[in-house]
Amino acid sequence: MEEVRLALMGFGNVGRALAQMIIDKRAAVYSKYGKRLVVTAIATGSHGNLYNPKGIDLKQALQHYEKGFNEDDDADWTEDSADTLVYCGEYDVLVELSPLNIRTGQPAANRIKQALKMKKSAVSANKGPVAWYYSDLAAMAQARGGKFYFESTVMDGTPIFNLRDNCLKLCDVTQIEGILNSTTNFILKALEEGKTWEQALEEGRALGMVEADPSMDIDGWDAAAKICVLSNVLMNAGIDPGKVSVQGIRGITKEQLDAAKAEGKTIKLMCRAEKDVFGRVTAVVAPEEVPADSLYADIGGASSVVSLTTDLMGKLTIVENDPTIIQTAYGVFQDILRLFS
Amino acid sequence: MEEVRLALMGFGNVGRALAQMIIDKRAAVYSKYGKRLVVTAIATGSHGNLYNPKGIDLKQALQHYEKGFNEDDDADWTEDSADTLVYCGEYDVLVELSPLNIRTGQPAANRIKQALKMKKSAVSANKGPVAWYYSDLAAMAQARGGKFYFESTVMDGTPIFNLRDNCLKLCDVTQIEGILNSTTNFILKALEEGKTWEQALEEGRALGMVEADPSMDIDGWDAAAKICVLSNVLMNAGIDPGKVSVQGIRGITKEQLDAAKAEGKTIKLMCRAEKDVFGRVTAVVAPEEVPADSLYADIGGASSVVSLTTDLMGKLTIVENDPTIIQTAYGVFQDILRLFS
Repeated sequence: MEEVRLALMGFGNVGRALAQMIIDKRAAVYSKYGKRLVVTAIATGSHGNLYNPKGIDLKQALQHYEKGFNEDDDADWTEDSADTLVYCGEYDVLVELSPLNIRTGQPAANRIKQALKMKKSAVSANKGPVAWYYSDLAAMAQARGGKFYFESTVMDGTPIFNLRDNCLKLCDVTQIEGILNSTTNFILKALEEGKTWEQALEEGRALGMVEADPSMDIDGWDAAAKICVLSNVLMNAGIDPGKVSVQGIRGITKEQLDAAKAEGKTIKLMCRAEKDVFGRVTAVVAPEEVPADSLYADIGGASSVVSLTTDLMGKLTIVENDPTIIQTAYGVFQDILRLFS
Repeated sequence: MEEVRLALMGFGNVGRALAQMIIDKRAAVYSKYGKRLVVTAIATGSHGNLYNPKGIDLKQALQHYEKGFNEDDDADWTEDSADTLVYCGEYDVLVELSPLNIRTGQPAANRIKQALKMKKSAVSANKGPVAWYYSDLAAMAQARGGKFYFESTVMDGTPIFNLRDNCLKLCDVTQIEGILNSTTNFILKALEEGKTWEQALEEGRALGMVEADPSMDIDGWDAAAKICVLSNVLMNAGIDPGKVSVQGIRGITKEQLDAAKAEGKTIKLMCRAEKDVFGRVTAVVAPEEVPADSLYADIGGASSVVSLTTDLMGKLTIVENDPTIIQTAYGVFQDILRLFS
């Protein structure tokens, strides 16, 4: 029996859903792949950290998380920081689930780099490191023999990167387009129904569709990070979010939506990337009027869509229908499975 | 350098597109995977057969195909039958591209079985063997150590089976739905535009969208074979086309299409399969009225779509947009690559 030891950087909604999935699927993973998944480190923003090289009791960690880990109640409590755990902890796979810093990709990127340097593997649900440092991190992984996967950075567990690697072999991706941010879908729909911006945001917050500070979504930066990740990984673009032309949906009015509708169209925040014959990639995020009878017009709610145009497999479109946090956790889980199967 | 020797059973449109792809990508395959693709046998229905254990000249085979292979012009011409080549030829991978026999899956199924028995691998673009004998063939492959892939039996090279194996690990597929036959899409559209059945068929034949004998498509048997393949492979259904409830589009009128339209709907030939809690699978092919603002309503022309509902990854939808013969050939090519990468 071989153990695969995981260090979780972050234990928010995704981290806890992942922990539950590891508990639920432990037997299936062992029976199918002969591996035992063990979590040796959990680092949180403000709930304390846990460390046990023999394996943390995940059920207890899930129970204790809300009130915070502490020395008295948690045998595995540690005063070591997240960085210390990354540098000195015993683990095989760094699982990066910390919140996105869109301006720098840090501190997640440095932690992943450190883990890869030590010949470990890394899995990231945080798109910052991939948007900013993909080529460095991929090169580091290759040089040291570790793996670096990040499926859930775009459309949760929907296979895109794994799809390219395993199902689109020798295909050249020349064009990417899609609707990658569902918060803007939700807001545009609400505006179309006659709600004010304030009502739309309030309702979205109540449903968990809109963040407390929605500017990352509304101003297009979340979408920009995603098209950047797609461009870098699928087209070797070598760009960062600062090189994406970004226009968000802030200020779009019901009048504009109605005018589009009158012409049989609807407004969506589209992401596009295109590679020219010299291999140069242009990436754009902007609101667009799309025909009401196009597939893109039907993408609503929490759903998202991406189309890849390739030389050998033509144009493939993949839709993720109304995902929950489970699908994000599955993306990370699947990346972990991919390391050894 | 290691050779991978292919025996092509069938050299129609798909076989010839595959041969061209092998020529075009030979260097890329060698540089990426260190393998040299060699075709040692080509069997055709009525254009003669070629065999050369050192490798057939594919360019010449493509040039000579139209007039038929013969003893005088083709050094590799052989009087051996397809079956003899399967039993006695030197090859590593049997590539089954012969026409579908929906009632029996033969002779393709027996040829694949024979190849697998001899510990070779098999790749099939012919859905008959998979619709009728999937579990036998899969068991034979596993017992003897060969592989059996058949991506292009459903939606050409669009990754479905490879996707499940590599990108949806440990996911349980509980429901499948889709539009898997594009000929019916084309005919329904033409009828909606006011064309008669006769005009629709004639126009479709001119565009290569409708077969000389269109009954397999119109009566739903092509779709039935496909949902059968999906059910057997993704849900262990253990069914054959005779167990699918099949209703085609024959007899559908413009009046019915108009009535649907008046209610904001459109008629599509839908395929559905569902697994109940006991693991029993029910598969149905029938025309359905789908809402005009649903994604399915937007699938027209040669496009097709499938949605997989899973426990861990929710509902994923994959659309193949206006494929050509290249995408079918790529499905076979990708299966071949999958054998050694």
